Amino acid sequence: MSVQVTTLPNGFRIVSEPMPGLESAAVGIWVDAGARHEAPEQNGIAHFLEHMAFKGTATRTALQIAEEIEDVGGYINAYTSRETTAYYARVLNSDLRLAVDLIADILRHPRFEAREIEVERGVILQEIGQALDTPDDVIFDWLQEAAYPAQPIGRSILGASDRVRAFSERDLRRFTAEHYGPGQMILAAAGGVDHDLLVRLAEDHFGDLRPCPAAVADLARFHCGERREVRDLEQAHFALAFEAPGYRDADFFTAQVYAGAMGGGMSSRLFQRLREEHGLCYTIFAQAGAYADTGLMTIYAGTGGEAMAQLSALTIDELKRSADDMTEAETARARAQMKAGLLMGLESPSARAERLARLLSIWGRVPHVSETVARIDAVDMPALRAHAARMIEAGRSALALYGPVGAAPGLAALSQRLAA
Amino acid sequence: MSVQVTTLPNGFRIVSEPMPGLESAAVGIWVDAGARHEAPEQNGIAHFLEHMAFKGTATRTALQIAEEIEDVGGYINAYTSRETTAYYARVLNSDLRLAVDLIADILRHPRFEAREIEVERGVILQEIGQALDTPDDVIFDWLQEAAYPAQPIGRSILGASDRVRAFSERDLRRFTAEHYGPGQMILAAAGGVDHDLLVRLAEDHFGDLRPCPAAVADLARFHCGERREVRDLEQAHFALAFEAPGYRDADFFTAQVYAGAMGGGMSSRLFQRLREEHGLCYTIFAQAGAYADTGLMTIYAGTGGEAMAQLSALTIDELKRSADDMTEAETARARAQMKAGLLMGLESPSARAERLARLLSIWGRVPHVSETVARIDAVDMPALRAHAARMIEAGRSALALYGPVGAAPGLAALSQRLAA
Repeated sequence: MSVQVTTLPNGFRIVSEPMPGLESAAVGIWVDAGARHEAPEQNGIAHFLEHMAFKGTATRTALQIAEEIEDVGGYINAYTSRETTAYYARVLNSDLRLAVDLIADILRHPRFEAREIEVERGVILQEIGQALDTPDDVIFDWLQEAAYPAQPIGRSILGASDRVRAFSERDLRRFTAEHYGPGQMILAAAGGVDHDLLVRLAEDHFGDLRPCPAAVADLARFHCGERREVRDLEQAHFALAFEAPGYRDADFFTAQVYAGAMGGGMSSRLFQRLREEHGLCYTIFAQAGAYADTGLMTIYAGTGGEAMAQLSALTIDELKRSADDMTEAETARARAQMKAGLLMGLESPSARAERLARLLSIWGRVPHVSETVARIDAVDMPALRAHAARMIEAGRSALALYGPVGAAPGLAALSQRLAA
Repeated sequence: MSVQVTTLPNGFRIVSEPMPGLESAAVGIWVDAGARHEAPEQNGIAHFLEHMAFKGTATRTALQIAEEIEDVGGYINAYTSRETTAYYARVLNSDLRLAVDLIADILRHPRFEAREIEVERGVILQEIGQALDTPDDVIFDWLQEAAYPAQPIGRSILGASDRVRAFSERDLRRFTAEHYGPGQMILAAAGGVDHDLLVRLAEDHFGDLRPCPAAVADLARFHCGERREVRDLEQAHFALAFEAPGYRDADFFTAQVYAGAMGGGMSSRLFQRLREEHGLCYTIFAQAGAYADTGLMTIYAGTGGEAMAQLSALTIDELKRSADDMTEAETARARAQMKAGLLMGLESPSARAERLARLLSIWGRVPHVSETVARIDAVDMPALRAHAARMIEAGRSALALYGPVGAAPGLAALSQRLAA
């Protein structure tokens, strides 16, 4: 099994990895364009554009797009994140060409008909409504905003309803022209794939695409903010973030292993303390998310309103304690979980294609799995303790609270306890 | 690749399927015990028991259980449904024995300590709170209750909070004794597995387990009920169910393909009509769920409160129309999606192990994939039209509405429109 990478003269890249024995393939195009590339008045346009891609091209109606892929039992979908928009398909091997043809068509020749824009606006307004009705969605958007106020990376991906109501074909065309250049796109595929075929298809569909300048996203500036909204819900939702390393930082894997040891699995500290010992919550986790220039370690828990003081005190105390008494055994366990998760994930063509695109975009190459494993293995107990100590010393955190949280301790109280 | 099945003298079954080339395995025990096997005063105990399994055994604390599996990078989890409780793990091949040892221990020797029961009660009450804050969870529980009122199969899996507050060790022991016999259990594994090793481990851990009589669940009686609750939410949630075939019914696959054609993918009728043409909703789907003796075809959509009349009228009209004009192309597409979904699912060890257990439990054997494919292929357009006509003729449906639904048409209006 080997990864192959090809770059077309205009900068468009193709990356693939065959997985012997598989009857299906995952293929997609990852574009370096997400919510953080939007100007303030554009907020929500990257996601709107992702929706409009499926609403018809110069030669296909929306129904034809859906029928062509589903006739062969495949599926096609897309997502928008803060730095990326991805369009991907899962098909049986023999239909790889069809999948690439379709994805290329919806990216190169979208129609953006006025009537279809109106219809899709309604769909997106419902998607926003659905997110607003889901406390787990709401609180992470608020946490992002609290951490990065008045910055592109702090805004929601879906955008505000009133902005979504105003988008026009012109806005869609402008964002496409600004961000959908060949240097911003990667065609990635894994499973039963043929690299040469993918390169030929990419040449046919994207070889003529004119480069556009790479977008320079504003550097993220972490802010120690808080957002609290009292609402009559069953649970009080708590989300706390600390500034963390970005993808390219030397201590990226340290942050990953640390988050795993603190709140990754059932044996992690926060799971054990908050759930197993005190029965305070059902969902509790810590995770280290990363962007190009920065990252966030997020801790989330849902509990009863009356338990918020206890939950936040226990959380802060576990963070503090970890700088002094994180053990070698916990570190080794977090490393083992991360490595096994990596290896198991690679058994899925979708996860593998996504990994190829992400690594190529970040590093300009795809490190071998053994290289990633070695970097994880290099994280030891002293590194975790030092990481925790730096985090506590820096004291840079942001907080979001939602539900029966009127009496919950705020960021000042939490920061004070952490520094004490 | 071939499936192997072994039955121990006490009725305990082992089923496995090797997947060459995989470095990991999925293994679990599926128990024929779920919410529908509970007496009214037991509602929620199957799920409570699933939680308590992880809270300590005769020889392991909760922390040791978590550490043992996570030390090797594996994970262990469980779920409870209306007919099944499953305990499963994902590990690298070399740790298969460890995973089986652990799962066997938590099933055979749970400790049910009073203190741990109290702690876990708190966790489950938070899980219930989380579900109540999630409209998508709430509405499907209500739909189930509307369709099967005052019946075990109609009750929620989590149980009501006041019942969960009352459960004791005695309740847990009673449900275990009634439903966790060797004839109710299947050890299933897929990936890098060794059947002979699995059989030896099963003999060691379960060979001495005394049979208990198979539970006879009350036959489900579908009821044309409605539940509506007005609440200040962004979206109005609509869930409509029709009585459908059970797993063992001759027309099980007809119902599956029909649901796919109506609301399975992007090209399906309801997706096209409600979302692509009218922009009424973001989430819209139809699916045919099945139990041992019956099934439910469920249609779900979330929309704005003012659009409920239009949404339900369009839905009913599409159902009616399908009995007359469902095409061969739509049928073929739904078949293709179902077959490709099956084949792609089989590339995941977890999905494959789950399939082995489910089929063995239903049929007493594991039909070859080609047999399932042949049954799907046997569903043609006339079968779908006839299925729709029977469903309309029978007119047996149940409805749940949640959110700004004060003015939404009720079940009587929908049934009248369907019959008109």
